Amino acid sequence: MPQPGTGMPPEDRDSLIATAHALADAARAATLPHFRDSALSVDSKGQGDFDPVTEADRGAEAAMRAVLAERRPEDGILGEELGQCDGQSGLTWVLDPIDGTRGFLAGTPTWGVLVAVSDANGPVYGIIDQPYIGERFCGGLGEAHLDGPHGRRALRSRAARPLDEAILFTTFPEVGTADEERAFRRLSGKARLTRYGMDCYAYALVALGQVDLVVEAGLHPYDIHAPIAVIEAAGGLVTDWQGRPVHGGGQVIAAANAQVHAAALALLAG
Amino acid sequence: MPQPGTGMPPEDRDSLIATAHALADAARAATLPHFRDSALSVDSKGQGDFDPVTEADRGAEAAMRAVLAERRPEDGILGEELGQCDGQSGLTWVLDPIDGTRGFLAGTPTWGVLVAVSDANGPVYGIIDQPYIGERFCGGLGEAHLDGPHGRRALRSRAARPLDEAILFTTFPEVGTADEERAFRRLSGKARLTRYGMDCYAYALVALGQVDLVVEAGLHPYDIHAPIAVIEAAGGLVTDWQGRPVHGGGQVIAAANAQVHAAALALLAG
Repeated sequence: MPQPGTGMPPEDRDSLIATAHALADAARAATLPHFRDSALSVDSKGQGDFDPVTEADRGAEAAMRAVLAERRPEDGILGEELGQCDGQSGLTWVLDPIDGTRGFLAGTPTWGVLVAVSDANGPVYGIIDQPYIGERFCGGLGEAHLDGPHGRRALRSRAARPLDEAILFTTFPEVGTADEERAFRRLSGKARLTRYGMDCYAYALVALGQVDLVVEAGLHPYDIHAPIAVIEAAGGLVTDWQGRPVHGGGQVIAAANAQVHAAALALLAG
Repeated sequence: MPQPGTGMPPEDRDSLIATAHALADAARAATLPHFRDSALSVDSKGQGDFDPVTEADRGAEAAMRAVLAERRPEDGILGEELGQCDGQSGLTWVLDPIDGTRGFLAGTPTWGVLVAVSDANGPVYGIIDQPYIGERFCGGLGEAHLDGPHGRRALRSRAARPLDEAILFTTFPEVGTADEERAFRRLSGKARLTRYGMDCYAYALVALGQVDLVVEAGLHPYDIHAPIAVIEAAGGLVTDWQGRPVHGGGQVIAAANAQVHAAALALLAG
Protein backbone atom coordinates (compact mmCIF):
# COMPACT_ATOMS: atom_id res chain seq x y z
CA MET A 1 0.00 0.00 0.00
CA PRO A 2 1.55 3.36 -0.97
CA GLN A 3 1.83 5.94 1.79
CA PRO A 4 -0.85 8.64 1.60
CA GLY A 5 0.18 11.69 -0.38
CA THR A 6 3.22 10.11 -2.04
CA GLY A 7 1.72 10.71 -5.53
CA MET A 8 1.58 14.46 -4.81
CA PRO A 9 3.64 16.93 -6.91
CA PRO A 10 6.88 17.84 -5.07
CA GLU A 11 5.93 21.51 -4.71
CA ASP A 12 2.66 20.59 -2.99
CA ARG A 13 4.46 18.17 -0.71
CA ASP A 14 7.06 20.79 0.19
CA SER A 15 4.36 23.36 0.91
CA LEU A 16 2.51 21.01 3.23
CA ILE A 17 5.65 20.03 5.15
CA ALA A 18 6.86 23.63 5.45
CA THR A 19 3.43 24.75 6.63
CA ALA A 20 3.23 21.97 9.22
CA HIS A 21 6.58 23.06 10.65
CA ALA A 22 5.55 26.73 10.60
CA LEU A 23 2.45 25.74 12.59
CA ALA A 24 4.45 23.77 15.13
CA ASP A 25 6.91 26.68 15.44
CA ALA A 26 4.06 29.14 16.05
CA ALA A 27 2.57 26.86 18.70
CA ARG A 28 5.94 26.43 20.42
CA ALA A 29 6.33 30.18 20.67
CA ALA A 30 2.81 30.56 22.05
CA THR A 31 2.86 27.70 24.57
CA LEU A 32 6.36 27.64 26.01
CA PRO A 33 6.22 30.99 27.88
CA HIS A 34 3.16 29.69 29.77
CA PHE A 35 4.56 26.26 30.65
CA ARG A 36 5.41 26.13 34.36
CA ASP A 37 4.29 29.74 34.70
CA SER A 38 3.05 29.95 38.28
CA ALA A 39 0.59 32.67 37.28
CA LEU A 40 -1.09 30.42 34.69
CA SER A 41 -4.79 31.09 34.77
CA VAL A 42 -6.97 28.06 34.29
CA ASP A 43 -10.68 27.96 33.66
CA SER A 44 -12.82 24.91 33.14
CA LYS A 45 -14.73 24.26 29.95
CA GLY A 46 -16.31 21.05 31.24
CA GLN A 47 -19.24 20.65 33.60
CA GLY A 48 -17.83 19.02 36.70
CA ASP A 49 -14.98 17.22 34.95
CA PHE A 50 -11.60 18.83 35.32
CA ASP A 51 -10.63 20.05 31.85
CA PRO A 52 -8.30 23.03 31.97
CA VAL A 53 -8.13 25.33 29.02
CA THR A 54 -5.31 27.75 29.29
CA GLU A 55 -4.37 30.97 27.68
CA ALA A 56 -1.54 29.00 26.09
CA ASP A 57 -3.98 26.58 24.48
CA ARG A 58 -6.15 29.26 22.90
CA GLY A 59 -3.20 31.50 22.03
CA ALA A 60 -1.41 28.66 20.25
CA GLU A 61 -4.42 27.73 18.16
CA ALA A 62 -5.00 31.38 17.20
CA ALA A 63 -1.32 31.66 16.19
CA MET A 64 -1.62 28.50 14.08
CA ARG A 65 -4.79 29.77 12.39
CA ALA A 66 -3.00 33.00 11.51
CA VAL A 67 -0.23 30.97 9.83
CA LEU A 68 -2.82 29.05 7.80
CA ALA A 69 -4.69 32.21 6.80
CA GLU A 70 -1.42 33.50 5.36
CA ARG A 71 -0.03 30.32 3.77
CA ARG A 72 -2.93 28.00 2.93
CA PRO A 73 -6.22 29.94 2.99
CA GLU A 74 -7.88 27.37 0.72
CA ASP A 75 -7.53 24.51 3.23
CA GLY A 76 -10.01 23.62 5.95
CA ILE A 77 -9.20 23.72 9.68
CA LEU A 78 -10.39 21.53 12.55
CA GLY A 79 -8.99 22.73 15.86
CA GLU A 80 -9.62 21.69 19.46
CA GLU A 81 -10.27 25.16 20.77
CA LEU A 82 -11.82 27.15 17.96
CA GLY A 83 -13.85 24.59 15.99
CA GLN A 84 -14.11 23.74 12.30
CA CYS A 85 -13.75 25.85 9.13
CA ASP A 86 -14.44 24.11 5.82
CA GLY A 87 -11.99 24.64 2.96
CA GLN A 88 -12.05 24.28 -0.84
CA SER A 89 -8.87 22.24 -1.39
CA GLY A 90 -9.96 18.87 -0.03
CA LEU A 91 -7.29 19.17 2.67
CA THR A 92 -7.97 19.94 6.33
CA TRP A 93 -5.47 20.95 9.04
CA VAL A 94 -6.26 19.12 12.25
CA LEU A 95 -4.78 20.96 15.23
CA ASP A 96 -4.52 20.29 18.93
CA PRO A 97 -2.53 23.18 20.40
CA ILE A 98 -1.90 21.38 23.70
CA ASP A 99 -2.63 17.67 23.84
CA GLY A 100 -2.37 16.77 27.51
CA THR A 101 -3.55 19.96 29.20
CA ARG A 102 -3.55 18.18 32.58
CA GLY A 103 0.10 17.24 32.09
CA PHE A 104 0.85 20.80 30.97
CA LEU A 105 -0.80 22.10 34.13
CA ALA A 106 1.19 19.69 36.32
CA GLY A 107 4.48 20.67 34.68
CA THR A 108 5.28 17.30 33.07
CA PRO A 109 7.21 17.59 29.79
CA THR A 110 5.01 15.04 28.03
CA TRP A 111 2.22 17.18 26.56
CA GLY A 112 2.48 18.05 22.90
CA VAL A 113 1.38 20.20 20.02
CA LEU A 114 -0.39 18.07 17.40
CA VAL A 115 -0.46 19.18 13.77
CA ALA A 116 -1.81 17.08 10.92
CA VAL A 117 -2.97 17.68 7.38
CA SER A 118 -5.60 15.24 6.21
CA ASP A 119 -7.74 14.38 3.22
CA ALA A 120 -10.99 12.41 3.21
CA ASN A 121 -9.05 9.17 3.77
CA GLY A 122 -7.21 10.42 6.85
CA PRO A 123 -3.92 12.14 7.69
CA VAL A 124 -1.20 12.54 5.05
CA TYR A 125 1.40 14.28 7.27
CA GLY A 126 1.66 14.84 10.99
CA ILE A 127 3.85 16.34 13.71
CA ILE A 128 3.94 15.58 17.44
CA ASP A 129 5.96 18.42 18.97
CA GLN A 130 7.21 18.71 22.57
CA PRO A 131 8.26 22.35 22.93
CA TYR A 132 9.96 22.20 26.34
CA ILE A 133 12.29 19.31 25.49
CA GLY A 134 12.58 20.54 21.93
CA GLU A 135 11.50 17.28 20.30
CA ARG A 136 9.62 17.08 17.02
CA PHE A 137 8.32 13.74 15.70
CA CYS A 138 7.36 13.98 12.00
CA GLY A 139 5.75 11.42 9.72
CA GLY A 140 4.18 11.15 6.28
CA LEU A 141 4.95 12.27 2.70
CA GLY A 142 8.08 10.12 2.79
CA GLU A 143 9.33 11.42 6.16
CA ALA A 144 9.63 9.56 9.47
CA HIS A 145 12.05 11.13 11.94
CA LEU A 146 12.58 12.74 15.30
CA ASP A 147 14.50 15.99 15.64
CA GLY A 148 15.49 16.50 19.25
CA PRO A 149 18.10 17.79 21.68
CA HIS A 150 20.46 14.99 20.71
CA GLY A 151 20.04 15.28 16.92
CA ARG A 152 17.97 13.54 14.27
CA ARG A 153 16.85 9.94 14.46
CA ALA A 154 14.79 7.84 12.06
CA LEU A 155 11.45 6.61 13.39
CA ARG A 156 10.86 2.89 13.08
CA SER A 157 8.30 1.01 15.17
CA ARG A 158 9.30 -2.19 16.99
CA ALA A 159 9.39 -5.64 15.46
CA ALA A 160 6.78 -8.18 16.57
CA ARG A 161 7.22 -9.86 19.94
CA PRO A 162 4.85 -11.88 22.14
CA LEU A 163 2.30 -9.88 24.12
CA ASP A 164 3.95 -10.92 27.39
CA GLU A 165 7.04 -8.99 26.27
CA ALA A 166 5.06 -5.93 25.14
CA ILE A 167 4.94 -2.46 26.74
CA LEU A 168 1.44 -0.92 26.86
CA PHE A 169 0.50 2.70 27.56
CA THR A 170 -2.70 4.53 28.29
CA THR A 171 -3.25 7.95 29.84
CA PHE A 172 -5.69 7.24 32.69
CA PRO A 173 -6.11 3.94 34.58
CA GLU A 174 -9.90 4.32 34.20
CA VAL A 175 -9.46 4.37 30.37
CA GLY A 176 -13.14 5.19 29.63
CA THR A 177 -16.45 3.49 30.46
CA ALA A 178 -16.55 0.48 32.80
CA ASP A 179 -16.69 -1.84 29.76
CA GLU A 180 -13.72 -0.09 28.18
CA GLU A 181 -11.75 -0.36 31.42
CA ARG A 182 -12.52 -4.11 31.63
CA ALA A 183 -11.38 -4.60 28.03
CA PHE A 184 -8.20 -2.68 28.78
CA ARG A 185 -7.56 -4.80 31.90
CA ARG A 186 -7.82 -8.01 29.83
CA LEU A 187 -5.06 -6.68 27.62
CA SER A 188 -3.03 -5.11 30.41
CA GLY A 189 -3.05 -8.41 32.32
CA LYS A 190 -1.21 -10.07 29.41
CA ALA A 191 1.33 -7.33 28.70
CA ARG A 192 4.75 -7.21 30.28
CA LEU A 193 4.45 -3.64 31.50
CA THR A 194 1.64 -1.07 31.60
CA ARG A 195 2.42 2.61 32.05
CA TYR A 196 0.23 5.68 32.42
CA GLY A 197 0.18 9.44 32.11
CA MET A 198 1.93 10.21 28.82
CA ASP A 199 -0.84 11.68 26.62
CA CYS A 200 0.36 12.10 23.00
CA TYR A 201 3.92 11.32 24.03
CA ALA A 202 3.00 7.64 24.26
CA TYR A 203 2.16 7.61 20.53
CA ALA A 204 5.52 9.23 19.77
CA LEU A 205 7.16 6.37 21.69
CA VAL A 206 5.40 3.80 19.46
CA ALA A 207 6.85 5.55 16.40
CA LEU A 208 10.26 5.64 18.10
CA GLY A 209 10.25 1.85 18.58
CA GLN A 210 10.14 2.02 22.39
CA VAL A 211 6.56 0.98 23.06
CA ASP A 212 4.40 -1.76 21.52
CA LEU A 213 0.86 -0.52 22.19
CA VAL A 214 -1.17 2.53 23.17
CA VAL A 215 -4.85 1.96 23.92
CA GLU A 216 -7.28 4.76 24.74
CA ALA A 217 -10.98 5.55 24.47
CA GLY A 218 -13.10 8.64 23.95
CA LEU A 219 -10.58 10.44 21.72
CA HIS A 220 -11.48 13.33 19.42
CA PRO A 221 -10.25 13.55 15.81
CA TYR A 222 -7.75 16.27 16.75
CA ASP A 223 -6.19 13.92 19.36
CA ILE A 224 -5.35 11.23 16.86
CA HIS A 225 -4.69 12.58 13.33
CA ALA A 226 -1.06 13.54 14.00
CA PRO A 227 -0.29 10.28 15.87
CA ILE A 228 -1.80 8.27 12.97
CA ALA A 229 0.46 10.02 10.45
CA VAL A 230 3.62 9.66 12.54
CA ILE A 231 3.06 6.03 13.59
CA GLU A 232 2.02 4.82 10.11
CA ALA A 233 5.10 6.49 8.62
CA ALA A 234 7.22 4.61 11.18
CA GLY A 235 5.70 1.25 10.20
CA GLY A 236 2.99 0.92 12.85
CA LEU A 237 -0.83 0.81 12.73
CA VAL A 238 -3.53 2.94 14.33
CA THR A 239 -7.16 1.77 14.24
CA ASP A 240 -10.25 1.58 16.41
CA TRP A 241 -10.79 -1.42 18.70
CA GLN A 242 -12.44 -3.28 15.81
CA GLY A 243 -9.50 -2.70 13.47
CA ARG A 244 -11.23 0.01 11.40
CA PRO A 245 -9.95 3.48 10.44
CA VAL A 246 -10.07 5.78 13.45
CA HIS A 247 -9.50 9.29 12.15
CA GLY A 248 -13.01 10.10 13.38
CA GLY A 249 -11.86 9.45 16.97
CA GLY A 250 -13.31 7.14 19.64
CA GLN A 251 -11.62 3.96 20.87
CA VAL A 252 -8.04 3.95 19.62
CA ILE A 253 -5.33 1.33 19.46
CA ALA A 254 -1.87 2.20 18.17
CA ALA A 255 0.40 -0.77 17.57
CA ALA A 256 4.03 -1.19 16.57
CA ASN A 257 3.23 -3.98 14.12
CA ALA A 258 0.41 -6.10 12.69
CA GLN A 259 1.06 -9.07 14.98
CA VAL A 260 0.81 -7.20 18.28
CA HIS A 261 -2.16 -5.28 16.86
CA ALA A 262 -4.04 -8.51 16.12
CA ALA A 263 -3.20 -10.01 19.52
CA ALA A 264 -4.39 -6.88 21.31
CA LEU A 265 -7.61 -6.57 19.29
CA ALA A 266 -8.55 -10.14 20.22
CA LEU A 267 -8.21 -9.35 23.95
CA LEU A 268 -10.05 -6.04 23.69
CA ALA A 269 -12.97 -7.87 22.00
CA GLY A 270 -13.23 -10.20 25.03
CA MET B 1 14.84 25.25 61.89
CA PRO B 2 18.22 25.78 60.12
CA GLN B 3 18.76 23.82 56.91
CA PRO B 4 20.98 20.77 57.34
CA GLY B 5 24.66 21.41 56.71
CA THR B 6 24.44 25.22 56.80
CA GLY B 7 26.91 25.37 59.75
CA MET B 8 29.53 23.58 57.59
CA PRO B 9 32.83 25.33 56.67
CA PRO B 10 32.60 26.81 53.14
CA GLU B 11 35.34 24.55 51.75
CA ASP B 12 33.48 21.43 52.91
CA ARG B 13 30.24 22.73 51.46
CA ASP B 14 31.92 23.48 48.13
CA SER B 15 33.54 20.04 48.04
CA LEU B 16 30.19 18.32 48.63
CA ILE B 17 28.38 20.34 45.96
CA ALA B 18 31.18 19.90 43.41
CA THR B 19 31.28 16.17 44.10
CA ALA B 20 27.51 15.82 43.76
CA HIS B 21 27.67 17.49 40.33
CA ALA B 22 30.64 15.35 39.29
CA LEU B 23 28.58 12.27 40.22
CA ALA B 24 25.56 13.46 38.24
CA ASP B 25 27.82 14.26 35.27
CA ALA B 26 29.37 10.78 35.40
CA ALA B 27 25.92 9.18 35.52
CA ARG B 28 24.70 11.28 32.60
CA ALA B 29 27.62 10.11 30.49
CA ALA B 30 27.00 6.48 31.45
CA THR B 31 23.21 6.41 31.03
CA LEU B 32 22.45 8.61 28.05
CA PRO B 33 24.07 6.45 25.34
CA HIS B 34 21.82 3.57 26.45
CA PHE B 35 18.56 5.54 26.62
CA ARG B 36 16.33 4.56 23.69
CA ASP B 37 19.02 2.20 22.46
CA SER B 38 17.08 -0.53 20.69
CA ALA B 39 19.81 -3.03 21.54
CA LEU B 40 19.44 -2.39 25.29
CA SER B 41 19.79 -5.68 27.11
CA VAL B 42 17.52 -6.14 30.07
CA ASP B 43 17.65 -8.82 32.70
CA SER B 44 15.41 -9.19 35.70
CA LYS B 45 16.67 -9.07 39.26
CA GLY B 46 13.22 -9.73 40.75
CA GLN B 47 11.41 -13.05 41.08
CA GLY B 48 8.29 -12.71 38.97
CA ASP B 49 7.97 -8.94 39.26
CA PHE B 50 9.25 -7.00 36.30
CA ASP B 51 12.28 -5.08 37.52
CA PRO B 52 14.73 -4.32 34.73
CA VAL B 53 18.32 -3.69 35.56
CA THR B 54 20.22 -2.42 32.62
CA GLU B 55 23.83 -2.08 31.69
CA ALA B 56 23.24 1.66 31.98
CA ASP B 57 22.12 1.32 35.59
CA ARG B 58 25.15 -0.68 36.68
CA GLY B 59 27.58 1.29 34.53
CA ALA B 60 26.37 4.58 35.99
CA GLU B 61 26.73 3.42 39.56
CA ALA B 62 30.23 2.08 38.88
CA ALA B 63 31.17 5.42 37.29
CA MET B 64 29.83 7.30 40.32
CA ARG B 65 31.73 5.04 42.73
CA ALA B 66 34.93 5.72 40.79
CA VAL B 67 34.35 9.47 41.24
CA LEU B 68 33.89 9.00 44.99
CA ALA B 69 36.98 6.79 45.32
CA GLU B 70 38.96 9.63 43.79
CA ARG B 71 37.36 12.64 45.50
CA ARG B 72 35.86 11.52 48.81
CA PRO B 73 37.31 8.11 49.79
CA GLU B 74 36.47 8.73 53.47
CA ASP B 75 32.70 8.88 52.87
CA GLY B 76 30.29 5.95 52.90
CA ILE B 77 28.24 4.87 49.88
CA LEU B 78 24.75 3.39 49.64
CA GLY B 79 23.84 2.57 46.05
CA GLU B 80 20.90 0.80 44.48
CA GLU B 81 22.92 -1.58 42.39
CA LEU B 82 26.13 -2.26 44.26
CA GLY B 83 25.10 -2.08 47.94
CA GLN B 84 26.57 -0.33 50.96
CA CYS B 85 30.15 0.67 51.92
CA ASP B 86 30.63 2.23 55.34
CA GLY B 87 32.81 5.33 55.60
CA GLN B 88 34.71 7.18 58.34
CA SER B 89 33.48 10.74 57.81
CA GLY B 90 29.91 10.44 59.07
CA LEU B 91 28.68 11.27 55.55
CA THR B 92 27.17 8.78 53.13
CA TRP B 93 26.49 9.21 49.41
CA VAL B 94 23.11 7.76 48.54
CA LEU B 95 22.91 6.93 44.84
CA ASP B 96 20.23 5.68 42.50
CA PRO B 97 21.79 5.58 39.04
CA ILE B 98 18.42 5.23 37.27
CA ASP B 99 15.30 5.92 39.30
CA GLY B 100 12.45 4.78 37.10
CA THR B 101 14.02 1.89 35.18
CA ARG B 102 10.60 1.00 33.73
CA GLY B 103 10.25 4.53 32.36
CA PHE B 104 13.83 4.35 31.05
CA LEU B 105 12.99 1.10 29.30
CA ALA B 106 9.82 2.57 27.77
CA GLY B 107 11.69 5.64 26.50
CA THR B 108 9.91 8.26 28.66
CA PRO B 109 12.12 11.22 29.61
CA THR B 110 10.99 11.16 33.24
CA TRP B 111 13.49 8.79 34.88
CA GLY B 112 16.33 10.36 36.79
CA VAL B 113 19.72 10.01 38.37
CA LEU B 114 19.45 10.54 42.13
CA VAL B 115 22.47 11.75 44.10
CA ALA B 116 22.37 12.71 47.78
CA VAL B 117 24.88 13.16 50.55
CA SER B 118 23.49 12.46 53.99
CA ASP B 119 24.47 12.39 57.65
CA ALA B 120 22.75 10.46 60.44
CA ASN B 121 19.85 12.94 60.43
CA GLY B 122 19.15 12.60 56.72
CA PRO B 123 20.15 14.27 53.45
CA VAL B 124 22.13 17.52 53.44
CA TYR B 125 22.32 17.99 49.65
CA GLY B 126 20.62 16.31 46.73
CA ILE B 127 20.34 16.29 42.94
CA ILE B 128 17.55 14.94 40.73
CA ASP B 129 19.03 14.85 37.22
CA GLN B 130 17.22 14.12 33.94
CA PRO B 131 20.01 13.49 31.43
CA TYR B 132 17.97 13.38 28.21
CA ILE B 133 16.18 16.69 28.75
CA GLY B 134 19.27 18.11 30.41
CA GLU B 135 17.53 19.16 33.62
CA ARG B 136 19.21 19.21 37.02
CA PHE B 137 17.21 19.96 40.19
CA CYS B 138 19.52 20.80 43.12
CA GLY B 139 18.71 21.45 46.77
CA GLY B 140 20.44 21.86 50.12
CA LEU B 141 23.46 23.70 51.58
CA GLY B 142 21.77 26.98 50.67
CA GLU B 143 20.91 25.99 47.08
CA ALA B 144 17.47 25.38 45.52
CA HIS B 145 17.42 25.66 41.74
CA LEU B 146 16.78 23.97 38.44
CA ASP B 147 19.30 24.21 35.60
CA GLY B 148 17.64 23.17 32.38
CA PRO B 149 17.38 23.70 28.62
CA HIS B 150 15.74 27.10 29.19
CA GLY B 151 18.17 28.38 31.84
CA ARG B 152 18.22 28.53 35.64
CA ARG B 153 15.15 28.85 37.79
CA ALA B 154 14.75 29.02 41.57
CA LEU B 155 12.88 26.14 43.18
CA ARG B 156 10.01 27.14 45.45
CA SER B 157 7.18 24.80 46.39
CA ARG B 158 3.54 25.92 46.04
CA ALA B 159 1.65 27.93 48.61
CA ALA B 160 -1.15 26.24 50.52
CA ARG B 161 -4.46 25.67 48.78
CA PRO B 162 -7.46 23.46 49.61
CA LEU B 163 -7.07 19.77 48.85
CA ASP B 164 -9.77 19.98 46.17
CA GLU B 165 -7.44 22.29 44.23
CA ALA B 166 -4.36 20.09 44.76
CA ILE B 167 -2.48 18.01 42.16
CA LEU B 168 -1.41 14.56 43.40
CA PHE B 169 1.08 12.16 41.83
CA THR B 170 2.03 8.57 42.36
CA THR B 171 3.90 6.19 40.07
CA PHE B 172 1.59 3.15 39.90
CA PRO B 173 -2.21 3.14 40.39
CA GLU B 174 -1.81 0.10 42.68
CA VAL B 175 0.48 2.18 44.97
CA GLY B 176 1.45 -0.76 47.23
CA THR B 177 -0.53 -3.21 49.39
CA ALA B 178 -4.35 -3.28 49.24
CA ASP B 179 -4.47 -1.15 52.43
CA GLU B 180 -2.02 1.33 50.97
CA GLU B 181 -4.06 1.55 47.78
CA ARG B 182 -7.26 2.19 49.80
CA ALA B 183 -5.53 4.94 51.78
CA PHE B 184 -4.29 6.49 48.55
CA ARG B 185 -7.82 6.36 47.05
CA ARG B 186 -9.23 8.25 50.04
CA LEU B 187 -6.76 11.02 49.31
CA SER B 188 -7.04 10.83 45.54
CA GLY B 189 -10.83 11.13 45.79
CA LYS B 190 -10.43 14.56 47.44
CA ALA B 191 -7.68 15.95 45.18
CA ARG B 192 -8.40 17.98 42.06
CA LEU B 193 -6.22 15.88 39.79
CA THR B 194 -4.30 12.61 40.17
CA ARG B 195 -1.54 11.72 37.74
CA TYR B 196 0.66 8.65 37.35
CA GLY B 197 3.89 7.41 35.88
CA MET B 198 6.51 10.05 36.69
CA ASP B 199 8.89 8.27 39.14
CA CYS B 200 11.37 10.75 40.69
CA TYR B 201 10.25 13.45 38.27
CA ALA B 202 7.09 13.93 40.34
CA TYR B 203 9.22 14.95 43.34
CA ALA B 204 11.09 17.45 41.17
CA LEU B 205 7.71 18.94 40.22
CA VAL B 206 6.85 19.46 43.91
CA ALA B 207 10.10 21.40 44.33
CA LEU B 208 9.31 23.36 41.17
CA GLY B 209 5.95 24.50 42.58
CA GLN B 210 3.87 22.61 40.00
CA VAL B 211 2.51 19.78 42.11
CA ASP B 212 1.11 19.70 45.67
CA LEU B 213 1.61 16.08 46.70
CA VAL B 214 3.45 12.88 45.83
CA VAL B 215 2.41 9.75 47.74
CA GLU B 216 4.13 6.40 47.31
CA ALA B 217 4.80 3.23 49.28
CA GLY B 218 7.55 0.65 49.44
CA LEU B 219 10.40 3.03 48.66
CA HIS B 220 14.05 2.34 49.41
CA PRO B 221 16.37 4.89 51.02
CA TYR B 222 18.12 5.50 47.69
CA ASP B 223 14.75 6.42 46.10
CA ILE B 224 14.04 9.22 48.52
CA HIS B 225 17.22 10.89 49.89
CA ALA B 226 17.73 13.20 46.90
CA PRO B 227 14.01 14.15 46.69
CA ILE B 228 14.01 14.97 50.42
CA ALA B 229 16.98 17.32 50.01
CA VAL B 230 15.58 19.07 46.93
CA ILE B 231 12.02 19.44 48.21
CA GLU B 232 13.00 20.63 51.70
CA ALA B 233 15.34 23.21 50.16
CA ALA B 234 12.39 24.44 48.07
CA GLY B 235 10.18 24.85 51.14
CA GLY B 236 8.27 21.56 51.08
CA LEU B 237 8.13 18.56 53.44
CA VAL B 238 8.85 14.86 52.96
CA THR B 239 7.82 12.37 55.67
CA ASP B 240 6.31 8.95 56.09
CA TRP B 241 2.50 8.54 56.23
CA GLN B 242 2.62 9.20 60.00
CA GLY B 243 4.56 12.45 59.59
CA ARG B 244 7.90 11.00 60.74
CA PRO B 245 11.32 11.24 59.05
CA VAL B 246 11.43 8.93 56.04
CA HIS B 247 15.07 8.71 54.98
CA GLY B 248 14.88 5.01 55.84
CA GLY B 249 12.31 4.52 53.04
CA GLY B 250 8.83 2.97 53.15
CA GLN B 251 5.58 4.92 52.80
CA VAL B 252 6.44 8.41 51.55
CA ILE B 253 4.49 11.63 51.28
CA ALA B 254 6.06 14.72 49.74
CA ALA B 255 4.08 17.91 50.20
CA ALA B 256 4.43 21.46 48.95
CA ASN B 257 3.58 22.97 52.34
CA ALA B 258 2.58 22.08 55.90
CA GLN B 259 -1.15 22.63 55.34
CA VAL B 260 -1.56 20.23 52.41
CA HIS B 261 0.73 17.78 54.22
CA ALA B 262 -1.53 17.77 57.29
CA ALA B 263 -4.69 17.44 55.21
CA ALA B 264 -3.23 14.52 53.25
CA LEU B 265 -1.91 12.71 56.36
CA ALA B 266 -5.39 12.81 57.90
CA LEU B 267 -6.91 11.11 54.85
CA LEU B 268 -4.12 8.52 54.56
CA ALA B 269 -4.72 7.60 58.23
CA GLY B 270 -8.38 6.83 57.40
